[in-house]
Amino acid sequence: MTNPDFDVLTVGNAIVDIIARADDDFLVRENIIKASMNLIDAARAEHLYEVMGPAIEASGGSAGNTAAGIASLGGKAAYFGKVADDHLGEIFTHDIRAIGVDFGTKPLEGLPPTARSMIFVTPDGERSMNTYLGACVELGPEDVDADVVARSKVTYFEGYLWDPPRAKDAIRLAAQIAHDNQRQVAITLSDPFCVDRYRGEFLELMRSGTVDIIFANDAELKSLYETSDLATAMSLVKDDVTLAAVTRGEEGSIIVTGEESIEVAAHAIEVLEDTTGAGDLYASGFLYGLTHNYKLRDCALIGGLAAAEVIQHVGPRPQVSLADLLAQSGI
Amino acid sequence: MTNPDFDVLTVGNAIVDIIARADDDFLVRENIIKASMNLIDAARAEHLYEVMGPAIEASGGSAGNTAAGIASLGGKAAYFGKVADDHLGEIFTHDIRAIGVDFGTKPLEGLPPTARSMIFVTPDGERSMNTYLGACVELGPEDVDADVVARSKVTYFEGYLWDPPRAKDAIRLAAQIAHDNQRQVAITLSDPFCVDRYRGEFLELMRSGTVDIIFANDAELKSLYETSDLATAMSLVKDDVTLAAVTRGEEGSIIVTGEESIEVAAHAIEVLEDTTGAGDLYASGFLYGLTHNYKLRDCALIGGLAAAEVIQHVGPRPQVSLADLLAQSGI
Repeated sequence: MTNPDFDVLTVGNAIVDIIARADDDFLVRENIIKASMNLIDAARAEHLYEVMGPAIEASGGSAGNTAAGIASLGGKAAYFGKVADDHLGEIFTHDIRAIGVDFGTKPLEGLPPTARSMIFVTPDGERSMNTYLGACVELGPEDVDADVVARSKVTYFEGYLWDPPRAKDAIRLAAQIAHDNQRQVAITLSDPFCVDRYRGEFLELMRSGTVDIIFANDAELKSLYETSDLATAMSLVKDDVTLAAVTRGEEGSIIVTGEESIEVAAHAIEVLEDTTGAGDLYASGFLYGLTHNYKLRDCALIGGLAAAEVIQHVGPRPQVSLADLLAQSGI
Repeated sequence: MTNPDFDVLTVGNAIVDIIARADDDFLVRENIIKASMNLIDAARAEHLYEVMGPAIEASGGSAGNTAAGIASLGGKAAYFGKVADDHLGEIFTHDIRAIGVDFGTKPLEGLPPTARSMIFVTPDGERSMNTYLGACVELGPEDVDADVVARSKVTYFEGYLWDPPRAKDAIRLAAQIAHDNQRQVAITLSDPFCVDRYRGEFLELMRSGTVDIIFANDAELKSLYETSDLATAMSLVKDDVTLAAVTRGEEGSIIVTGEESIEVAAHAIEVLEDTTGAGDLYASGFLYGLTHNYKLRDCALIGGLAAAEVIQHVGPRPQVSLADLLAQSGI
């Protein structure tokens, strides 16, 4: 095993976010499930854009946000994800490289276009996403750069990758390469409805040892084990993975291993503007800590620090240097 | 004269902003004149995008921002400006229509692409713009919808329109139609360097009565009269137009007519994030007030209110309803 060149490789749907404010009535009227990721087709994307208010555009995608956060913390991050060779694809590519992430996945020539997610932020700061997957449906095993996987301490991927048809094959291949090189593999469960769509496969990934580490929020973890009781879900998950990091919004997070369970409070914020990216940036901070030999409690604190930055402004990626915030934090 | 259907028609370069943070050293290294609008060509645009950090995209353009602000205040606004039939053009068109502005200028088919401005926001909140004019160079008299001009109480345009080759012809035509219909015409001087490029023509527009109202900040007004003394410039401008609204950043604004001079304090803010759009939104508020029969002092206060909203977040257009802010303001 040579020394790794990357702390974390993340793999996900490469998406540009189109973000607007909306009220709750709008979500009801347009049949958008609040606080979730709603998959949409091209026709619905066109309709929703027509009824959407003025928006801003920002590169997003859950694992893309996580990679950006790791880079902002000063970690070495790589990313696999499929854009098209169009203007949104250029924006995505620019932004992830500009923050210092290694991104070399070949863009899709021609159609479908780069994925976009129309995100409606309600007055409570909650985000409701409507994602047209576009070029992401073409991500497959041929996009796995084995060398990058072998050189990354952790390979981390989104549960969302089970939505496009062949990305799961890319993930299984990458996980095999990672483990062949004594690296770790992590998953985020992404969304309660996503868990509902792929519960059996996610549990199989965990129980077969294909993944070592799981990130989930409380709703996703309860969905995974089909229970309304978080304690029950927590007691089950510790048998299925080496490490679980469970986020609970303003209540902070809980880290569970075979040996211990650690509760960590959330980082204080002034104003909640937009929750988009909260879980993604928590994962950034946690994985940065894990790959820089911080104690588990400190990993969770760095996760909370990164999440707190991103929810205090509109947009899913950090707007200031997380490395500076970490240096000032005393963690 | 029939009853007007629009409070204000604004005309300007239709631009999508690409906004990133940068430090002052970056501006020096890249030869960007701070706090100004730097005109760039396609090759320089490519270079600057390569060295730019992660960005967000938001519809902008000075007069576009002003129209958006008037609509957000509940006023009726129309806009003329030239985009191309590309993705940035769709974004611009969506955003200005979504906020309620009437926008019907025919997009340019093919190249050049929709204009973009790379805006670097320094830690002091100041913005330095780098504008590639793209499709804006094609705006001409054929884009003037005479009916819309005739139906607008005020036609307002940017000094920036003197940069593309034929937009000034569109403005002269629109001003003629406006005056033939007993409407008012307003100009914003846009930028001190822009004033330097077109000083003679701007003074001719004012002295010939082609424009009735002028918006300028103190630097622009001093540039116009080639003086370092604001009082001198103020005494000169009152002979050249019916009404001048001069903004002075945190020192508020001064309104000058033939009869009086009114000083108004700036609206208090909590944190200055990004000055982009400050002058544009001041004009929104002032023109909304003027077309809704507010006293001049209140017009200036509404201008300050709108400017205060836009400088407290990244991006050049309001993120909340200015009509709500006005209703709560007691103005």
